[in-house]
Amino acid sequence: MSNYLPIVFGVAGGTASGKTTVARTILESVGAEQVAYFPHDAYYRDSPHLSFEERAQQNYDHPNSLENKLLVQHVQQLLAGQPVQVPVYDFTLHRRKKETILVEPAPIVLIEGILIFTRRRLRDLMDIKIYVDTDADIRFIRRLERDMNERNRSLDSVVAQYVETVRPMHLKFVEPSKRYADVIIPNGGRNQVAMEMVVSRLRELLNTRSMR
Amino acid sequence: MSNYLPIVFGVAGGTASGKTTVARTILESVGAEQVAYFPHDAYYRDSPHLSFEERAQQNYDHPNSLENKLLVQHVQQLLAGQPVQVPVYDFTLHRRKKETILVEPAPIVLIEGILIFTRRRLRDLMDIKIYVDTDADIRFIRRLERDMNERNRSLDSVVAQYVETVRPMHLKFVEPSKRYADVIIPNGGRNQVAMEMVVSRLRELLNTRSMR
Repeated sequence: MSNYLPIVFGVAGGTASGKTTVARTILESVGAEQVAYFPHDAYYRDSPHLSFEERAQQNYDHPNSLENKLLVQHVQQLLAGQPVQVPVYDFTLHRRKKETILVEPAPIVLIEGILIFTRRRLRDLMDIKIYVDTDADIRFIRRLERDMNERNRSLDSVVAQYVETVRPMHLKFVEPSKRYADVIIPNGGRNQVAMEMVVSRLRELLNTRSMR
Repeated sequence: MSNYLPIVFGVAGGTASGKTTVARTILESVGAEQVAYFPHDAYYRDSPHLSFEERAQQNYDHPNSLENKLLVQHVQQLLAGQPVQVPVYDFTLHRRKKETILVEPAPIVLIEGILIFTRRRLRDLMDIKIYVDTDADIRFIRRLERDMNERNRSLDSVVAQYVETVRPMHLKFVEPSKRYADVIIPNGGRNQVAMEMVVSRLRELLNTRSMR
């Protein structure tokens, strides 16, 4: 590894806003080997003391459902040039898996998740904060399609979870955290003009790292 | 001039949002000689048939107060490689001046104004659309300070104009036009991270123009 500090890049936004597409575009454009990728939801707290039913009832859209301290520690470790063991979460069992993913230091550290701007310690680590902003109805439609088609969920269960948890937590935590963004990307993912701007800046930073 | 098409770059946003600072940063970063600059408010309609009092009473925050057709025509002329005579507006007399400014074709065409995204013909000309988004109270404070300190206006007159015209027109035309932006820049002007991203992309486009 070089001695240059990595660029820490945060991508936030509501559920189904296009965050993952933005993250994927970055990975593909600058090369996955240049990026240490931290999906926030890998850091869901592990609650082995709860039953499956109790775990399924947890509010996974609240910032406290995530082990932010561990993520901050991992990013700091990486910035110090050390590899980290990123946890893997089992979304079916609502448990952290035994295995981890080894993430090596890389010039770009990419942190992605709906709640990554809600904690100051996390924000303070980031050099560039992007909020992917997509209208709520479009986000709901995407989530509905994804959950019904890919996850075999019923309409009722998707709507219930959305209305009871996802939406209120979005209004309470995600939407207000947009205020901390450096750049807001509407229609995330499909917004080519914005993506070209983001990737252009990352390429420039990669090329001029020796000057930082 | 080269045969390559210029990049048309639009900067919109409410009054005192920081649009001009963004435009100035672009001019300084890529070099003024690379930019053909079109401030929308140079295109205020000339109404010689009205008295000064009548002219002063016009709603200058409504899209129809601007000669959009002429601006579109000028940008198209420039894209075709021809220089244009940009009008100059006298904001004291509310009249178009007799003199014009000669604007030569340049690799970047920069259009700036609160209402530039409200007309489709104008939007369709733009390759990159930026909306500078600053909170309404902060924008009012900046406008108040500017108008009282630099333009010798009274508090009452600034507030009256803001409440009666600027604010309703902002809510009716400017704010909804944000929807057409490719990228939204919060805290415009003072937002260094965003400005670096914008300028980086413009530099890249300038360097790779032969590939367009």
